[in-house]
Amino acid sequence: MRLAVMGAGAVGSSVVELAGEYGHDVTAFADSRSAVVDADGIDAPTVLERKEHEGVVGDADPEEALAATYDVLVEATPTTLGDAEPGMSHVEAALRRDRHVVLANKGPVAERYGDVRELEADSEGRVLFEATVGGAMPVLSTITDIGPDHITAVRGVLNGTVNFVLSRMAAEGLDYEHVLAEAQDMGVAETDPSFDVEGTDTALKGVILANVLADGREYTLADADVEGIVDIPGSVLELAREDGRTVRLIVEVRAGEIRVGPRLVPENAALAPTGTTNAVQLETEHAGQLNVSGPGAGGPETASAILADVDRLAHE
Amino acid sequence: MRLAVMGAGAVGSSVVELAGEYGHDVTAFADSRSAVVDADGIDAPTVLERKEHEGVVGDADPEEALAATYDVLVEATPTTLGDAEPGMSHVEAALRRDRHVVLANKGPVAERYGDVRELEADSEGRVLFEATVGGAMPVLSTITDIGPDHITAVRGVLNGTVNFVLSRMAAEGLDYEHVLAEAQDMGVAETDPSFDVEGTDTALKGVILANVLADGREYTLADADVEGIVDIPGSVLELAREDGRTVRLIVEVRAGEIRVGPRLVPENAALAPTGTTNAVQLETEHAGQLNVSGPGAGGPETASAILADVDRLAHE
Repeated sequence: MRLAVMGAGAVGSSVVELAGEYGHDVTAFADSRSAVVDADGIDAPTVLERKEHEGVVGDADPEEALAATYDVLVEATPTTLGDAEPGMSHVEAALRRDRHVVLANKGPVAERYGDVRELEADSEGRVLFEATVGGAMPVLSTITDIGPDHITAVRGVLNGTVNFVLSRMAAEGLDYEHVLAEAQDMGVAETDPSFDVEGTDTALKGVILANVLADGREYTLADADVEGIVDIPGSVLELAREDGRTVRLIVEVRAGEIRVGPRLVPENAALAPTGTTNAVQLETEHAGQLNVSGPGAGGPETASAILADVDRLAHE
Repeated sequence: MRLAVMGAGAVGSSVVELAGEYGHDVTAFADSRSAVVDADGIDAPTVLERKEHEGVVGDADPEEALAATYDVLVEATPTTLGDAEPGMSHVEAALRRDRHVVLANKGPVAERYGDVRELEADSEGRVLFEATVGGAMPVLSTITDIGPDHITAVRGVLNGTVNFVLSRMAAEGLDYEHVLAEAQDMGVAETDPSFDVEGTDTALKGVILANVLADGREYTLADADVEGIVDIPGSVLELAREDGRTVRLIVEVRAGEIRVGPRLVPENAALAPTGTTNAVQLETEHAGQLNVSGPGAGGPETASAILADVDRLAHE
């Protein structure tokens, strides 16, 4: 397949780097300021080196990437709330041209799911978004395989930054502020960590899960009940530990409700991954509980989920 | 889809019981001695009650089920070694009629994978077998999604009976013979447990994984290096426990080799599920380690994996 990759952060760049290995060509690649377009396939090493050293991917305008020749648009610009722009416009541009879309950007399917599905219904193109929930973990494809009707609840630990902070607090008996500063030094947490630690990122993933599980109804962030980890004192983790338990930021989607908050879980439970690992638990009607865990973020990890979606479209 | 279900054990019976809920009709159902055939769909409750009380599913001959009207043959007769009969003949009969096959029976894809693929290549029908490895867990579909080329190793705890025995030995400090007798009383282990405790069942699942991962080469049980749990003294588990570790029967498939044997693993590791729970770890090229755990056996659990395969065929 020929890919137009929008967004040149860790995920977009990894897609460009790995596409060839999966048998696909990148015919367009854009960051917020520049683009490179080549119908025969761009030269990934050269372009990625230019991005690293000059901060631009090419001499073309980002709009030219949208107008390029491609089969699948890979939307890997940053997730935004509300109107989900500019991602949503990229999705719309691709679908109106009857092209497929693979999302790493959570915005369109968390904040404007109804619009996405409506545009998709009028298009020959399809929209897949495995990478938006749990990075490399096959969460959405497993839900599709089992059938959303046969799943009674989904619970997940879906933010690696938060999980790293909680794991370290529990292991070292340190307070939130100490561990957060350490995580920022290590590059595990952003300078402004609010999107993660206030639970917003986790909630968006819960909203996407609710949209996938729902029969028609559309959910947005406004439907989620969200509490973050900012107010957890280290002493709570210490008390939990004495009882063989720990605290994790868990999203639960069940019966049309989306709840995010710190929860007590047994230390060795499926929902107590350590470090930046993510975990998802599917409660099914006939197949008991299924647990999946793995890296929930990272450039190559998330890119591999995107390229699996591209393969899925190629085989259909 | 219209299903012909061959085999009326826990798995076959559960498929018959649940098919309607998934929107499918069972048009034929056979055990080793009898069959019931109805092109409009058999009446599941009546048939299952007759099986329970009279030991037969109907008045027809099992051969009539094979000749019935159906879209998918569900092969749920017991796994046999070597020629994989009678399952293999059922697979062949369906494919020669250009019908699809969904397997719960491991024999055809573990012992005669080359024959199955050859018959499939000459048929309009396809063969799926998610239920053969890890029951309800989506192991094979996850491998397909990621792409076999991008998986460097698969490790698994794939036999619930063995895992129950090892978990109990570790938790109670009891010897193998004691725990096995207890497991037999509870119905978790068979009267003749050799197929499980000698590692054969685990090895067959490893062979299936190797066939799915392999690029052309065919594997059979003869290619697996197999050691069971019969000779593990309780004292080994005790020593392991003092060191924060435990013993699990693990199959590893890597670089064309299939090895089954008891291995030391950290007590809380992804590959140390407790009780009858199964676990699989996929080591990937770009997406780190993915772990899946869940019920690896059971009638409704395995039936749900079979019906997911049927849905996959229906959507293609």
